[in-house]
Amino acid sequence: MNERELVDLLPKEQYGVLIPIGDDCGEIEWPSSSLLASCDLLIDGEHFDTTVHSPEQIAFKCLRVNISDIAAMAGKPVTVLLAVAFSRKLPGDFGNRFLKSFSRCCEADGVVLLGGDTNFCDGPSTISVTIIGQPHAKGSVKRSGARVSDDIYVTGPLGGSLKSGRHMRPPRRIELAQKIVDSIQVHSMIDLSDGLATDLRHILKEGHVGAKLYLSMIPMHADVERVEEALTDGEDFELCFTASREARSILSRLGCHRIGEIIDVPEKIFLEGESGKLEIFELLGFEHRSEK
Amino acid sequence: MNERELVDLLPKEQYGVLIPIGDDCGEIEWPSSSLLASCDLLIDGEHFDTTVHSPEQIAFKCLRVNISDIAAMAGKPVTVLLAVAFSRKLPGDFGNRFLKSFSRCCEADGVVLLGGDTNFCDGPSTISVTIIGQPHAKGSVKRSGARVSDDIYVTGPLGGSLKSGRHMRPPRRIELAQKIVDSIQVHSMIDLSDGLATDLRHILKEGHVGAKLYLSMIPMHADVERVEEALTDGEDFELCFTASREARSILSRLGCHRIGEIIDVPEKIFLEGESGKLEIFELLGFEHRSEK
Repeated sequence: MNERELVDLLPKEQYGVLIPIGDDCGEIEWPSSSLLASCDLLIDGEHFDTTVHSPEQIAFKCLRVNISDIAAMAGKPVTVLLAVAFSRKLPGDFGNRFLKSFSRCCEADGVVLLGGDTNFCDGPSTISVTIIGQPHAKGSVKRSGARVSDDIYVTGPLGGSLKSGRHMRPPRRIELAQKIVDSIQVHSMIDLSDGLATDLRHILKEGHVGAKLYLSMIPMHADVERVEEALTDGEDFELCFTASREARSILSRLGCHRIGEIIDVPEKIFLEGESGKLEIFELLGFEHRSEK
Repeated sequence: MNERELVDLLPKEQYGVLIPIGDDCGEIEWPSSSLLASCDLLIDGEHFDTTVHSPEQIAFKCLRVNISDIAAMAGKPVTVLLAVAFSRKLPGDFGNRFLKSFSRCCEADGVVLLGGDTNFCDGPSTISVTIIGQPHAKGSVKRSGARVSDDIYVTGPLGGSLKSGRHMRPPRRIELAQKIVDSIQVHSMIDLSDGLATDLRHILKEGHVGAKLYLSMIPMHADVERVEEALTDGEDFELCFTASREARSILSRLGCHRIGEIIDVPEKIFLEGESGKLEIFELLGFEHRSEK
């Protein structure tokens, strides 16, 4: 579906003539023996804020949080579907700008916009994106699989995303994830949407292992003052993964940050300060209000 | 994702412990060289009504409207993803009952629930389902392709669906669509969600043709009084398709209702009464309030 066709999905009352899309389903060639799929629903006031963010910013984020889920499995995004309910209270051109921008974001990120459904509603605007991708030729990397004495890595600096507005610009980690998996054996991986403190626990739970984090090695954004923020702030959308020690030099060349190691204390996280003192870490990461 | 895992997607504040799903994406084998995908977003007060309908009824409809889109292309549904924002005003067990029921509906309809995202919101509940399916071995049937002198068929009685509550129980037309496409050459097909008057026009527009409908041959539900209701009421979720005259006896045996023919007057619909008199028909079908 191109931009013109997507905008044509807009109900006619508000935006002019509704030109129907060509078919009940989109169809796309599938060259692979399996597929990855994920969906995320974002709500105004929870994941973005139409009083602050432009439709273009919102479109970018809505696509990228889904692309991040594919990156987290080292897959390649191929196609997306978009279902929206725009609030009737929004300015008349919001939907139009959002859809045009979403279509352009898809093009820029190399994914085909395969289908859509547009509605209006009386509540806050709600945007649901489903992404379908191809797994890596070596197979998908899962959350499970972390092994005791694995190193723990992240792909970029953490923290302060919601405060600074970076949460609206999730990075694209597709190519980096593929390079990593091309080069070494990744044992477990996840993307950091709810904060390292929460997302790393998924890896620990699935792998029945624990973690020791080196406080001095956690990469932080320049505007982050306390390392706790880097551990608990949400929506960094960097990848967190584990791999054995042999991979250190390769991962260092790829720009990955080693931040800790997997230990044999199931589901516990310990922080190691500069003095070498260990402290148990029980905080969780960021929780969206919509999860409550 | 099984029922237990899906319910585990529910945010923990309201429903107990949140057990994380295993991975960022669901993964499924894909045996085919292409895929069909479609999404539909349903809103409380527009497509269903939580003050009237049970979570089980709503779950059934949300899945079946998507299955209907796959049937409309003669495909086979394989897997679905579900993204929901439950209103915080709903009773505490609504989400739980909905998710359990949705999972059971998937099982009953033979589709794998591959992924999900659950949220709460302050507006009306919003439910977005994406369905992924396999095209028919002969290729997908599209809306385009109707030819002058084709017969026009529907797969069941029409009208009164919203009034009677039948709109909550869309029929499953997957097997019938496959049988039809196995047996004859279908030139164009669509499912009737917005009413024959609107949906047939999609076929006419795509094929640059018109239609003559035989008023006396339109099949109607017993509770429908006027044939106009059968033409304009929405949410029948029967299929409408066109095929050449040679297919008549086969389609009659399959229980399809011949209701008219394709004519060479682009995008016009004429009604033929019992006297043989032709009248142009300009009404449209049902429009959801959410489309405005």
